[in-house]
Amino acid sequence: MSAVKLEEFRERIRKELDTTVDFWLQHSHDPLHGGFFTCLGRDGEVYDELKYVWLQGRQVWMYCRLYRTMDRFHRPEILEAAKAGGAFLRKFTRVPGAGSGQWKCAFSLTRDGKAVKIQRTIFSECFYILAMDELSRVTGDKDMQLEAEQMMEQLISWVRGDPAGLGRPQLPGDVPTNSMAVPMMLLCLVQQLTEGGGAEVVQKYTELASWCVQQILQHIQRGGTAILENVSVDGAELPGCQGRLQNPGHALEAGWFLLQVSAQQKDEALQRTAIDKFMELPYQNGWDKEHGGLFYFLDVDGHCPTQLEWNMKLWWPHCEALIAFLMAYSHTREPALLHRFSEVFEYTFKNFPDAQKGEWFGYLTQEGKVALDFKGGPFKGFFHVPRCLYMCERILDDMLANKDRAF
Amino acid sequence: MSAVKLEEFRERIRKELDTTVDFWLQHSHDPLHGGFFTCLGRDGEVYDELKYVWLQGRQVWMYCRLYRTMDRFHRPEILEAAKAGGAFLRKFTRVPGAGSGQWKCAFSLTRDGKAVKIQRTIFSECFYILAMDELSRVTGDKDMQLEAEQMMEQLISWVRGDPAGLGRPQLPGDVPTNSMAVPMMLLCLVQQLTEGGGAEVVQKYTELASWCVQQILQHIQRGGTAILENVSVDGAELPGCQGRLQNPGHALEAGWFLLQVSAQQKDEALQRTAIDKFMELPYQNGWDKEHGGLFYFLDVDGHCPTQLEWNMKLWWPHCEALIAFLMAYSHTREPALLHRFSEVFEYTFKNFPDAQKGEWFGYLTQEGKVALDFKGGPFKGFFHVPRCLYMCERILDDMLANKDRAF
Repeated sequence: MSAVKLEEFRERIRKELDTTVDFWLQHSHDPLHGGFFTCLGRDGEVYDELKYVWLQGRQVWMYCRLYRTMDRFHRPEILEAAKAGGAFLRKFTRVPGAGSGQWKCAFSLTRDGKAVKIQRTIFSECFYILAMDELSRVTGDKDMQLEAEQMMEQLISWVRGDPAGLGRPQLPGDVPTNSMAVPMMLLCLVQQLTEGGGAEVVQKYTELASWCVQQILQHIQRGGTAILENVSVDGAELPGCQGRLQNPGHALEAGWFLLQVSAQQKDEALQRTAIDKFMELPYQNGWDKEHGGLFYFLDVDGHCPTQLEWNMKLWWPHCEALIAFLMAYSHTREPALLHRFSEVFEYTFKNFPDAQKGEWFGYLTQEGKVALDFKGGPFKGFFHVPRCLYMCERILDDMLANKDRAF
Repeated sequence: MSAVKLEEFRERIRKELDTTVDFWLQHSHDPLHGGFFTCLGRDGEVYDELKYVWLQGRQVWMYCRLYRTMDRFHRPEILEAAKAGGAFLRKFTRVPGAGSGQWKCAFSLTRDGKAVKIQRTIFSECFYILAMDELSRVTGDKDMQLEAEQMMEQLISWVRGDPAGLGRPQLPGDVPTNSMAVPMMLLCLVQQLTEGGGAEVVQKYTELASWCVQQILQHIQRGGTAILENVSVDGAELPGCQGRLQNPGHALEAGWFLLQVSAQQKDEALQRTAIDKFMELPYQNGWDKEHGGLFYFLDVDGHCPTQLEWNMKLWWPHCEALIAFLMAYSHTREPALLHRFSEVFEYTFKNFPDAQKGEWFGYLTQEGKVALDFKGGPFKGFFHVPRCLYMCERILDDMLANKDRAF
């Protein structure tokens, strides 16, 4: 494929990123209480004022990342919104947890910051850390950085030590599980906390990063022919639907996480595993040969999944697939990987962007019809779309700046 | 409509009920541990051994009800399966709760009865009571009956007194809500516990029954033009998606619950409200004019619901609609209600039954294509289909036995 083609991809991606940032700048800010409305209808109208904490943290992170690393987004309004979001999070999100002296982060808050719901998982805390660390890099606020690291310590103790602080009762039938989301999130946080850091901070998290990679690799199952979403803590397959569950988009996201590690550690075997197992397999198993697009959930034995939305096409798995295949191509220059990227790109840009009103639809039927037409909801915020566009644009920038290497 | 037409309905319904009972008798029993497998694939194969407590309790109730009230199901194998299911429930479901001296019922158990998950709601307990009361009517076991009543007392105290025993943290943004499921379930349990009972037991629950009816009537909103699923405890509309949510099938189910009360109390005003507000409105607002069938969720202001499955056609709302319209017709003999029944019947029997393998599919796309092809899952068991067929058959029996009244 020619450099011209890569330029074309970049042009389209850059335009989409601009439109997406504009959409959220225009519609999602709460000038009264800070923080972000995330329930935005097709035109951007706020249809619910609840503030979902995952999405608050992610939007702060994304704004700061854009502000900090891309010239055209180094704009005061973006910084101010990120700071107001961060202040809202710090002021309202943390609530006393079940463990003595421990904090939990709420899952959702009222517009003015009253806690509505707390999940018995680690994810609100993860996105809180992501936001605080990235915001501290922009503002230079050392307290905030420290707070991120303290929350990280607590999170590690829940995952690798005693989970009682999460508030789930211990039940005899609830066997401990290695759910891929957990080591993925921790690995993502290690990447965040160590980025650009000195030897000391890298050293601090080295063992944890290796543990995360090993935990993720345990999800390669069935003699290397499938990535399963949940395995036992010993890396064995679990019985029933939970054990047979595949989430192709999630596996692809793990793929590019692993690829980043393989590049940092110059580990060619890990690079191969990331590509062959966490990209090619989910694509082979998860791509809908009839209608195109990635299924949301599949059962490795071909049973019907019990999730009602299993055959829908969601925006975020396609975002992860785009990052994964483009990054894999940029690391290896294998034409087959650029071909995969191109295929996913075609489906994604044909079906998800809303040409009339801007931003992307999030939820399509199996056949590709828009099933839910809002731009933001409890789980779709300013994150997967801009992160994908941002990362792809930067990968393309790097490749196009080094045209001496063959495409 | 002629008696011949009613006979045709009854014939088809009776045949479906026989097929459905056969399917579950053949595939769902666990001879090793008792209780029922509910994750049954299209052919009846067990694809997951987890035992979901809602569905255990419902199957015990349904088996006993069929055994006790219909001659052709007064068969030893049905009684034995119900008793084995009841024994499994009694032995394994109750686990110590958050309140001192209180029990909770688990939501799901392993095949051999180890608790896997506990929900912080009342519903497992509700279906436990339903099972115990009905089983005690068949077996004459007074202990079991007493246990049902004791669990009922605890349930009432959670709903009308202190909900702390449910294990949910009290959060400042989590305002108390009148969710229609709660008074509906309590009313259903009152009907169960008082059925055929003397003045004393009826008296015991009279105030509670009135309270349930009033709580359900609070869901008539928007100047009498919509049934909303969640309202404030004072009966006011709640903000956001939660407040605007409509669940047409659930409203129709509430409709026939209210209709039963109106008949017992000879309350014509309540009969009118049940029909006009809880049947006609959900039908008008919830029926898909383009593809037929009832939507699962709708937003009263026409926003897109955030539930990914909002536009799917599920089996159980159609079951509730069939019971509601047929019962309403049998109480009033208004031809328009039989016409509605006929319309729902046509859609339902065209799309849900599996002519090849028996039983019904549960989950269709908006267009009516089978989206999930299993016969049983975490929320679909031996309950809505047989309850609907059983009740409709009995209503038709009564009407056809009294042919002197005009149809």
